[in-house]
Amino acid sequence: MNRILLTGFEAFGDHPSNPTLTALSAFGNQQIAGAQVFTQALPVNAASMPEVLAQVLKRVQPHAVLLTGLAAGRVQLSLERVALNVLDFRIPDNAGASFQDRELCSGGPDAYLSTLPLRAILSAWREAGVPGYVSDTAGLYLCNQAMYLARHQLGPGVPCGFLHVPADETLALFQPPGRPLLPYLPQSEINRGIGLALDALAAGLTSL
Amino acid sequence: MNRILLTGFEAFGDHPSNPTLTALSAFGNQQIAGAQVFTQALPVNAASMPEVLAQVLKRVQPHAVLLTGLAAGRVQLSLERVALNVLDFRIPDNAGASFQDRELCSGGPDAYLSTLPLRAILSAWREAGVPGYVSDTAGLYLCNQAMYLARHQLGPGVPCGFLHVPADETLALFQPPGRPLLPYLPQSEINRGIGLALDALAAGLTSL
Amino acid sequence: MNRILLTGFEAFGDHPSNPTLTALSAFGNQQIAGAQVFTQALPVNAASMPEVLAQVLKRVQPHAVLLTGLAAGRVQLSLERVALNVLDFRIPDNAGASFQDRELCSGGPDAYLSTLPLRAILSAWREAGVPGYVSDTAGLYLCNQAMYLARHQLGPGVPCGFLHVPADETLALFQPPGRPLLPYLPQSEINRGIGLALDALAAGLTSL
Amino acid sequence: MNRILLTGFEAFGDHPSNPTLTALSAFGNQQIAGAQVFTQALPVNAASMPEVLAQVLKRVQPHAVLLTGLAAGRVQLSLERVALNVLDFRIPDNAGASFQDRELCSGGPDAYLSTLPLRAILSAWREAGVPGYVSDTAGLYLCNQAMYLARHQLGPGVPCGFLHVPADETLALFQPPGRPLLPYLPQSEINRGIGLALDALAAGLTSL
Repeated sequence: MNRILLTGFEAFGDHPSNPTLTALSAFGNQQIAGAQVFTQALPVNAASMPEVLAQVLKRVQPHAVLLTGLAAGRVQLSLERVALNVLDFRIPDNAGASFQDRELCSGGPDAYLSTLPLRAILSAWREAGVPGYVSDTAGLYLCNQAMYLARHQLGPGVPCGFLHVPADETLALFQPPGRPLLPYLPQSEINRGIGLALDALAAGLTSL
Repeated sequence: MNRILLTGFEAFGDHPSNPTLTALSAFGNQQIAGAQVFTQALPVNAASMPEVLAQVLKRVQPHAVLLTGLAAGRVQLSLERVALNVLDFRIPDNAGASFQDRELCSGGPDAYLSTLPLRAILSAWREAGVPGYVSDTAGLYLCNQAMYLARHQLGPGVPCGFLHVPADETLALFQPPGRPLLPYLPQSEINRGIGLALDALAAGLTSL
Repeated sequence: MNRILLTGFEAFGDHPSNPTLTALSAFGNQQIAGAQVFTQALPVNAASMPEVLAQVLKRVQPHAVLLTGLAAGRVQLSLERVALNVLDFRIPDNAGASFQDRELCSGGPDAYLSTLPLRAILSAWREAGVPGYVSDTAGLYLCNQAMYLARHQLGPGVPCGFLHVPADETLALFQPPGRPLLPYLPQSEINRGIGLALDALAAGLTSL
Repeated sequence: MNRILLTGFEAFGDHPSNPTLTALSAFGNQQIAGAQVFTQALPVNAASMPEVLAQVLKRVQPHAVLLTGLAAGRVQLSLERVALNVLDFRIPDNAGASFQDRELCSGGPDAYLSTLPLRAILSAWREAGVPGYVSDTAGLYLCNQAMYLARHQLGPGVPCGFLHVPADETLALFQPPGRPLLPYLPQSEINRGIGLALDALAAGLTSL
């Protein structure tokens, strides 16, 4: 049976929670379109995350990887096109570390493109009434770091990429006055979008 | 039994549909918190809408009025604070009419403030996990026109105001490439927000 | 000789300065199109500002009033269409006071429309290569308060309204990382826009 | 004497002009900080632009290359961090061609990072009162194509990268009603920013 790894991130910055962490519980130990889903929470810690990620990739030996994270301020689900070999943080990570223009992986290529079936996932979303798009930047925070490292470790043969989700209702309600209103999607809609992406990913594996 | 009038608008501009028109069908002939809900679709036609609105107000003799409309681009449900005595259109209405700096109601006051229980509705939303806010401008298109005229006709004794909703998934999916991504809420979430507002409104009538 | 009163506000919130205060020094004791310009800085203090404003209106007895203030986040110069009889602050004023849904002027009308020659100023801007627009909300902070009170005191016969300016380079450079990038205009462009508005205002007085 | 190549693009899409084309005339045949500036306008034509670019690089044999282009909607000057090996157009180019997920350069690396002295240019801007930032995506239109190809042809030894400018006053004034207001910078401010970047670039060459 095919194995799909789904990761999410813990809360970071000013946010009290992270919808991608919440989503994990909806998919753990599930089978989707004939594939077994494994879930892993990742720490928002540039120093320790790489080891957690490397270990789970080694343990699960996934046939496909869907990394997910929060992009508060975005208005729709988005699939990242690329991860860059750069760390450049606008806010410190949860351990207080910050980086500017720092090479992420010494001697690695400048970037890795996503190997997810981007258009198949967008089509599945569209058919199910979920707007979404391909984003041309994953930022240069932990999300980009995770995608770069997963792609680096896995090579081009394993579909692997990143799905960014907007804020959910919890984060939008938590936003303090005087700060911009946060666009949000209900957690249920975020979960639905992740589920549809897993479906499309699993279907793609089967059809290989 | 208390009567609440709920209005929505037909589609306009580049939009193929209007989530507030769609929402009407979910609430027609319903009882909410001991009140009877009456629904009315309004045309996006500055010349004919006033008569449609005046007639339904006369016919229903509502104890409260919740007008709703689409504000594509907004990121959360919003309650309008005020309607101005001005018509100023960025796009023509469905009859092709356009106005600039035009007085809406000859001799009327410059503005009417909402008489809805704004904070009670916001609280009901918050408790139910629905972010929302009070908007300080309803625009100067049909939505503002409807709110101004309803407030003008009803006087201060009948709770009356306007609820603007973001785009729904249909509109977000319809947005052509090259135009900005539309923030959206699922139609089900929009309906939920409208229902909670009706609940709060009905509860307020009962408690009087 | 006609007298035009130009006001600006002191710094507030997180901002280290206020481009409308800076602009005042460029126009104090100037003659523009045959009118004498008087300038007045206003405090960002909802309790004391009204008296400062009332006094300067009484002292100068202006033939026209151009109130100006900062709207950080806006992308072009904007003329306010209306001031509402409401105080509702997203951040406290400089004295720490905050208000929600508070009536600004007991028994006053819900709103005052601007009596500035909005379209003449927009035309003057356009001719000089300065984009700008009419804004339908002045917010509900000190800017709205000043416009409401000035219109209330002056009556409809004296052209009076509010001009909001975007952030300038100083504010944009001061924005901390992790906060949204601020749109800005160079202070010289802000001053030019204010000068053109004063020109149009003065020309309108003469042509009466 | 060091040679710096400065490129701009012709108008495209709905825009009547392009501030980076306008800027070229301000810098042609100028010496800046001991370097000679060469300018080249590039066509917004994915098929013919590569040859124009290749030819001017061959003819000028520049010691540094500053490519510039318009990013309407951005609010400050921005330096691109990276160019991707992808063509993906939201609007057709001036020859009507469009691409989706297309490899730009067969067999090329997924991306090239900028070799401009990004922080030195940001510092020069900041010192001169010009806000700016490093952008993590150049889009996937002609701007990205030009940067990718220039970096590909030049190798890592020649400082080369892309500077995106906001709309200028001409474009902001041209924006039709019903479309979002365009943030803008005066053309004079755009030219100033480009000049400061050339200064910093030239100074960097000398100090080598």
